[in-house]
Amino acid sequence: MHGYAKDKDAYLTRLRRIEGQVRGLQRMVAEDEYCIDVLTQVSAVTRALQSVALGLLEDHLGHCVAQAIDEGGPEAEEKVKEASAAIARLVRS
Amino acid sequence: MHGYAKDKDAYLTRLRRIEGQVRGLQRMVAEDEYCIDVLTQVSAVTRALQSVALGLLEDHLGHCVAQAIDEGGPEAEEKVKEASAAIARLVRS
Amino acid sequence: MHGYAKDKDAYLTRLRRIEGQVRGLQRMVAEDEYCIDVLTQVSAVTRALQSVALGLLEDHLGHCVAQAIDEGGPEAEEKVKEASAAIARLVRS
Amino acid sequence: MHGYAKDKDAYLTRLRRIEGQVRGLQRMVAEDEYCIDVLTQVSAVTRALQSVALGLLEDHLGHCVAQAIDEGGPEAEEKVKEASAAIARLVRS
Repeated sequence: MHGYAKDKDAYLTRLRRIEGQVRGLQRMVAEDEYCIDVLTQVSAVTRALQSVALGLLEDHLGHCVAQAIDEGGPEAEEKVKEASAAIARLVRS
Repeated sequence: MHGYAKDKDAYLTRLRRIEGQVRGLQRMVAEDEYCIDVLTQVSAVTRALQSVALGLLEDHLGHCVAQAIDEGGPEAEEKVKEASAAIARLVRS
Repeated sequence: MHGYAKDKDAYLTRLRRIEGQVRGLQRMVAEDEYCIDVLTQVSAVTRALQSVALGLLEDHLGHCVAQAIDEGGPEAEEKVKEASAAIARLVRS
Repeated sequence: MHGYAKDKDAYLTRLRRIEGQVRGLQRMVAEDEYCIDVLTQVSAVTRALQSVALGLLEDHLGHCVAQAIDEGGPEAEEKVKEASAAIARLVRS
């Protein structure tokens, strides 16, 4: 079971909302809305995705990484490395 | 007519693909996929959104802002200010 | 003359302050300050650099790009392309 | 002792290099270099700072957070929360 399991429904609700926002972007473009208004909405969707990612990361650190550390051994270091690489991708995206 | 009008179909195709990717994220969470794999996909969706935004911005600068500059007067400065605020939101999202 | 020329002193003051903040980071590390406090300061320096970049960009759009658009011809499109590439680097850094 | 202690000299060397790059930015502005070239250098300094932050974060997760998890108790959860907040600041800067 993964760290986010306990918040699964909340994540699914947020992702469905983001899906709706992306459909909203399609409508704005289809209806020739002003570029800046479309850009403002793109920034809002990006921030919503980011906050889903930050939640997943906190759950992962507090559950999967913590569990590996608790059990000790080489897996602990691998989990930290893996999480750090995911953080780097997030920071650079 | 806005700067992105000439690429409208391409933007709609990209946004539909992003919509599909967000649905894919829902499936990953619903099927309890590993946190890091979900995070990797979130970064991919964020980057796809970012590149849509950068395209819209270039079209806007080259069309709406350029037109205002061509026509001269206070609107030119307003358009530059407005575009710069949109860039700031993008950089900080 | 470039767009930022009129604000040159202000930019130099801000960059000297950022230089001081980076020296402050060195002191924190040399004096074994807590990791999270060092990280908080790194985020502050990154935001300060970002706001210098956003200012330079607005000046550039309002001066160098506007001038090229005013004069018309192929240089206008090149300037827009060049500015858009700089915005992309900023968004992705 | 903090996670980054073992790499302290390397971090100090990198931060001194970043300090030099910021002084380089001052020289570029003082000598009226082209805006886009200054912006390119700002992006380079931002990325260098980011990679210092990502290194500090990995060290912190692998040492301070891991230690708190090992020892168990409420401090473990606090450390995860604290690290997650630092990651959020980094993602949003």
